Amino acid sequence: MSARPDAPSWSEGTEAALRRRLDDLAKPPGALGRIEDLAVQLALIQGRPDPRADRVVLLIFAGDHGLTAEGVSSYPASVTAAMVRTLLAGRATASAFARSVGVEVRIVDAGVDADLPTHPDLRVGKVRRGTRNAAREPAMTVQEVQTALSLGAREASAAIEDGAEILVLGEMGIGNTASAALLMHRLTPAPLQDCVGLGAGHTPEGLARKHTALERAAARSAATEPLAVLQQFGGFEIAAMAGALIAAAARRTPVVVDGFIVTAAALAAVRLQPSARTGCIFAHRSQEAGHGRMLTALDAQPLLDLGLRLGEGTGGLLAVPLLRAAVALLNEVATLEDVVSGRV
Amino acid sequence: MSARPDAPSWSEGTEAALRRRLDDLAKPPGALGRIEDLAVQLALIQGRPDPRADRVVLLIFAGDHGLTAEGVSSYPASVTAAMVRTLLAGRATASAFARSVGVEVRIVDAGVDADLPTHPDLRVGKVRRGTRNAAREPAMTVQEVQTALSLGAREASAAIEDGAEILVLGEMGIGNTASAALLMHRLTPAPLQDCVGLGAGHTPEGLARKHTALERAAARSAATEPLAVLQQFGGFEIAAMAGALIAAAARRTPVVVDGFIVTAAALAAVRLQPSARTGCIFAHRSQEAGHGRMLTALDAQPLLDLGLRLGEGTGGLLAVPLLRAAVALLNEVATLEDVVSGRV
Repeated sequence: MSARPDAPSWSEGTEAALRRRLDDLAKPPGALGRIEDLAVQLALIQGRPDPRADRVVLLIFAGDHGLTAEGVSSYPASVTAAMVRTLLAGRATASAFARSVGVEVRIVDAGVDADLPTHPDLRVGKVRRGTRNAAREPAMTVQEVQTALSLGAREASAAIEDGAEILVLGEMGIGNTASAALLMHRLTPAPLQDCVGLGAGHTPEGLARKHTALERAAARSAATEPLAVLQQFGGFEIAAMAGALIAAAARRTPVVVDGFIVTAAALAAVRLQPSARTGCIFAHRSQEAGHGRMLTALDAQPLLDLGLRLGEGTGGLLAVPLLRAAVALLNEVATLEDVVSGRV
Repeated sequence: MSARPDAPSWSEGTEAALRRRLDDLAKPPGALGRIEDLAVQLALIQGRPDPRADRVVLLIFAGDHGLTAEGVSSYPASVTAAMVRTLLAGRATASAFARSVGVEVRIVDAGVDADLPTHPDLRVGKVRRGTRNAAREPAMTVQEVQTALSLGAREASAAIEDGAEILVLGEMGIGNTASAALLMHRLTPAPLQDCVGLGAGHTPEGLARKHTALERAAARSAATEPLAVLQQFGGFEIAAMAGALIAAAARRTPVVVDGFIVTAAALAAVRLQPSARTGCIFAHRSQEAGHGRMLTALDAQPLLDLGLRLGEGTGGLLAVPLLRAAVALLNEVATLEDVVSGRV
C-alpha cells in the first residue's frame, strides 16, 4: 500500500496501538488533546508508526476568473499576476510565513491571464489565460477540467518525488471566492446566499453585485455532479488543487487544507474520490462566511481559528508547526515507565 | 524606556501607525486577523517598529507542593523530580516541542523536594524542598514568597541578558493545579468549586478529595491581597513565574503564558503590578475547568484552543510560530503599492 519505499512494514487497524503508545508516554493520557489526534492521523495517512513532517512543500496554484468581468471582486484581475510576481520575489505574506516555518514554496500557473516571467519557483501549467465568465457560459470545457485536474496531480506527485513528506495547498486568483461559493452551493445542500461572503473585502454595493452575478451563474446550469460543477463554475487553480488532493491521498501524503477556496477544492476532490478525505488536515476556520458550513459538510474540525481570510496557503502554513509537534511527540518523548524507573 | 540598547528610537501612541503599515501591505486590510493584532502587540511591548522573535527561551519553573499530602493529585509527588530529570534528558513533551519550534529550554528548580543532578540546563534556586501543606498551614513564609519572586525576576532578566527576545513560561509541579485553583479563587470573584478541575486526571473519589482539601485550605485563611494569597496558597514555581512576568514586562520582553497554572501566576503578577499585563501573550485555552474564567478575569483571548492540559509550557511553545509569523508579516511583506507599481 505504501508509496514510500523506505516505510517500515505496517498493518492496518493500528489506531488503537498508536493511542496506547501515546497513553504510555510521560504525560497524562490525552493531555495533548488535538496534537495527539494529529499524531495518530499523520501516522495512519503516511502508513508508518514514525510519521515525518520535516520536508513540507507549499503548492500555490494561481488562476484567473472570467467572473471578474461581473465585478465579483473588489480587486482588478491584474492583481493575480502581480501577486504571483510578489510570491516569486519572496515578498508576499505566504513567502514570509513559509520562511518563518521552514516550508518550501512552489507556485503553479494553472491559468493566469498574463505572461509570467521564467523563474525557478514557477511551474508552468497554464490551462488557458483565465476561465470563461461563468455568469454567461461554462467556465471551462470538459477537456480543460481534465487538464487542470491532471496538472494538480502531476505537481503533487512531483513534490512528493522530490521528497515532500507533507503538502500544503494554497491559491491566488482574484475572483476565486465567487467560484468557490458556486462549487459549495452545488456540492452541499447550502442555498447560494449562505455560500457568498466578502472575499477580499467589498462595499455593500460590491457584495450585491457578487450575489447577482452568482445567481445568474447558478441559474445558467443545474449541474451537481462534481466534474460538471467544476466545469461550469470552477477555476483552473481550484480544479488543479482537487487533482493534487486526490493524487496526494493515493500516495499517502498528508495535505494541509487552507481556507475557503482550498476547502472548496477539497470538497470537489472528495465528491470525485471519497478516499481523498483521509489525507486532508484542515488548518483553520476562515473568516469567509460560508467556510464553517463547508467544513461541516466535510466533517472537518480545523486546528486554528485566527480570523484569517487571505488565502495563499497562509493559514495552512501556520498549522505546519502543529504537525511537526505531533510528530515530535510520537517519535521523541519518553514513556512514563522509563521516567519512573529512572531509565531516562 | 527601552531596555534594549539596540532598539531604534520609539515614540508611544504608535498603534495607529502600525495598523496603517499593516493595512498598506500586499493583502486586504485585516486579512491576517489575530496575526495582525499580534504583530502590533509585539511591536508595542518591545518598543520597536521591527519586533523580533528569533531568540525565544522557555523557562520551566519546578516546585513541589505540601498539598499533595492531602491526595490532591493522582500522581505521587516524586513525579516532579522525575519529570525534571526527563526534561534535562531532553525526553519530555516540552523538550520535543521546543526542539521542533527552535526554542531554548532552561529549567529552574524553585523548590523541588529532591536532590537534583548538576546539569547545564538546570538553574538552582530551590527556595525550600516543597511548600508546606496549605490545607494545614501557610504554604510559605513571607520571606519565602519574596525569595521566589526574586528568583523568577532574576531568571527572566538573565535570559533577556543572554539575548532572549521572547520568553515562554512553563511549570512542573505535582499538585500545582490545586495551588493555582486557590489563587484563582482568592484573586477573582469565582467560588472555589468553579476553580477546581481534574488537573492531570482524577477518579471521582480523587476529585472529591481535592475539593475537600481545597475547602479546608480556603477556610484556614481569608487572604485576598496578592502577596498574602501567594504566601498562603502559592507554589514556589508559581510565585517565581509571577516575578518573571513582572521583570520581563519592565524589560519590554513579551512573555508567552501557557495554561491554567501559568495563567494563575499571571493573575498574581497583574494584581501585584498591573503593568505586567501588557507583556502577556496568552497562548491557549486549556482543558482545565477554571481556565476560561481566569482568562476572562484577565481580559485575555488566547491564540489556540487545542484541548491541551499538560503544562511544561507545551501550549506556550505551540504559539511561538504564530509570533514569528506576525513578526515576519510586519518586517518582510511588500506593500500593495510596490506590488501594483511593479517595484517588487
